[in-house]
Amino acid sequence: MRVYLDNNATTIVDPKVFAEMVPYFCQMYGNPNSLHEFGSESHPALRKAMDQLYAGINASDEDDIVITSCATESNNWVIKSIYNDYILNGDKDHIITSEVEHPAVGASCKFLESLGVKVTYLPVNTDGVINVEDLKNAITDTTALVSIMWANNETGMIFPIEEIGAICKERGVLFHTDAVQAVGKIPVDVKKANVDFLSFSAHKFHGPKGIGGLYIRNGQPLSPFFHGGEHMGGRRSGTLNVAGIVGMGRAMELAVEALDFEKNNVRRLRDKLEDALLQIPEMMVVGTKEQRVPNTILVSVKGIEGEAMLWDLNQSGIGASTGSACASEALESNPVMEAIGAEADLAHTALRLSLSRFTTEEEIDFAIDVIQKAVIRLRAISSTYAYAPSWHVSKL
Amino acid sequence: MRVYLDNNATTIVDPKVFAEMVPYFCQMYGNPNSLHEFGSESHPALRKAMDQLYAGINASDEDDIVITSCATESNNWVIKSIYNDYILNGDKDHIITSEVEHPAVGASCKFLESLGVKVTYLPVNTDGVINVEDLKNAITDTTALVSIMWANNETGMIFPIEEIGAICKERGVLFHTDAVQAVGKIPVDVKKANVDFLSFSAHKFHGPKGIGGLYIRNGQPLSPFFHGGEHMGGRRSGTLNVAGIVGMGRAMELAVEALDFEKNNVRRLRDKLEDALLQIPEMMVVGTKEQRVPNTILVSVKGIEGEAMLWDLNQSGIGASTGSACASEALESNPVMEAIGAEADLAHTALRLSLSRFTTEEEIDFAIDVIQKAVIRLRAISSTYAYAPSWHVSKL
Ligand SMILES: Cc1ncc(COP(=O)(O)O)c(C=O)c1O
Ligand SMILES: Cc1ncc(COP(=O)(O)O)c(C=O)c1O
Repeated sequence: MRVYLDNNATTIVDPKVFAEMVPYFCQMYGNPNSLHEFGSESHPALRKAMDQLYAGINASDEDDIVITSCATESNNWVIKSIYNDYILNGDKDHIITSEVEHPAVGASCKFLESLGVKVTYLPVNTDGVINVEDLKNAITDTTALVSIMWANNETGMIFPIEEIGAICKERGVLFHTDAVQAVGKIPVDVKKANVDFLSFSAHKFHGPKGIGGLYIRNGQPLSPFFHGGEHMGGRRSGTLNVAGIVGMGRAMELAVEALDFEKNNVRRLRDKLEDALLQIPEMMVVGTKEQRVPNTILVSVKGIEGEAMLWDLNQSGIGASTGSACASEALESNPVMEAIGAEADLAHTALRLSLSRFTTEEEIDFAIDVIQKAVIRLRAISSTYAYAPSWHVSKL
Repeated sequence: MRVYLDNNATTIVDPKVFAEMVPYFCQMYGNPNSLHEFGSESHPALRKAMDQLYAGINASDEDDIVITSCATESNNWVIKSIYNDYILNGDKDHIITSEVEHPAVGASCKFLESLGVKVTYLPVNTDGVINVEDLKNAITDTTALVSIMWANNETGMIFPIEEIGAICKERGVLFHTDAVQAVGKIPVDVKKANVDFLSFSAHKFHGPKGIGGLYIRNGQPLSPFFHGGEHMGGRRSGTLNVAGIVGMGRAMELAVEALDFEKNNVRRLRDKLEDALLQIPEMMVVGTKEQRVPNTILVSVKGIEGEAMLWDLNQSGIGASTGSACASEALESNPVMEAIGAEADLAHTALRLSLSRFTTEEEIDFAIDVIQKAVIRLRAISSTYAYAPSWHVSKL
């Protein structure tokens, strides 16, 4: 049996999504910005996809959803263009973010620091979430932007986005949220949350890789990141990825339709897995179930290096993650574990398990069995886990 | 009959390319940077695709080909990071480009001007090509970059890239070329051309939309454009678009295999079409056939607004372009026509016809007939084409 439990890294393309994309490779391949039917014949599908995206996050007609190639692009765009528009060419000098953002936000902020921008990285509590009082205290008259993620990719913890949105609105500060891990997992409503900018990436909700978006509230200025031929109303240049857009629209629609399923069924399986893991001694899960998106578990398995666990699970056909930097194949500690104040050795023992609506009960039962056995086996040979509590012995 | 003659805007995905992409949507969907088989099972295909790209442009192992989302990204990246690395954080202050670059280069340069950078836009001659003497004269001790396209998207004219590369090398200036319209049409050899950076976009050579690349010579530093999770050796962040990369690799391979076909068969059909068009009085084609990529004709049809012609051709099932800004549906003059010094009224009469290896003789015969009739009909009602030479009358 093969069990994919790495849906926070990327997801399978829903076959229904793929089916809608197929005609836009070898049949309706024209550039939609052309003055001929080869281009215009994809307009209905593009319009439908845009409608699906607007509906999916409750955007208004006056808002813009600009298609990008991924959330990394969307995040870089917002942060660097805010720098350009309000700091370089304005009187602001400060950005606020959190210590646990995805590197696409974190590294962009570090880049701005190299240009002289002041960046506040808000700390997180032991649940991995910021304190809104800290945010209030951090905002100054020269704060250009607050960029706080909607849900964390490693812990699944949901941030108090509505509260943050209200604070930013009250203080007149622009608010960006990286909603990559929220879309398709919990309701995402840009109006309620009062966000100015919101990033998303299709491949995290069963759409294709290489396509994403940036929501921009009602006419909010933001200088382009991709200069060029003035596509998308001058917001973002580059030939439109028609198949990708069509796929992302459908994926959004399906994800929103499946939110109840996510909330009930995916959560039930996640909880079953989590409860079983917590039967094993000295396992620590970050954050309460209630405050988390329904599909994610970040668990520290005392005494077992995350990568050793992954290798072992992989042998049994299970795909999971250490939750550390997405591009790295090196031994690394989990940065969110570190941010929440876990001791160094614990931060090396993180295991991230992330489900999706394609995960079955059979797969979870299998995973429970495999993980239990792996913990026993690996702790038995662990140099940092020197004792063998009775639970382990009894299961051997 | 439907005839697609807008291949410089975008191309059909070769069904062979699409076939290779299919497994990477719903089957092998893992993130290749993961520590499990769902991720690693796409490694062989990714490696093959990268090999196909390296071979396609004759890159060396020490060189980098970094995957981007399109040539617009690649062009923006080079120009803005050269600014960052050599102008903002260095002692250079100057960039050289041409008057006829694609807007992804042109608008990026304009953006740098707004940051205080000096930009030289080299003029073109009546064939639409720069004079290398002008380039030599423009280079100074503080020139950071020369960015000159390999072939022009509107005229198809090939620039003297090897000469330009040699000049840049001799003068110690970095050289970027936008090779979007050269790849798959003529041999592109980064070694011979001595380029430091080269941009390409898969959908221009029968690959999918939303994927492109930037070639970077042997260890050449270039700060990232997308900051984040350190994918692609830290060069460019964002989850890899596996299906797109696999498709682009195969598309490159097929395009290179078809270069002889392009040189002989595509060119023959192009020449047949061109010769027939030039039978019509007062048609002007930009540039000699020999100096052009084999698939392109930019023709000025005196007295007929480009958009009127496009509408008429579209009625008959033919897709073509005015060759003006790629994202615009407004009446615009052709910027390259303007740059080569065509009078304003001529610049509004441009018609770009671009073939591909999928264009058939039957389609060309049909197009010749349709275009001849359209010219007659539209000139008859043209307010700027008041007389009816006997050729037109005899054909009515
Ligand atoms: C919270 C978050 N933001 C941004 C990203 C970047 O998404 P992408 O790799 O599609 O650009 C990811 C995933 O890697 C993520 O989990
Ligand atoms: C010469 C040239 N450069 C760059 C581009 C941009 O390519 P893309 O739209 O794929 O980013 C194009 C096509 O539009 C082009 O013809």
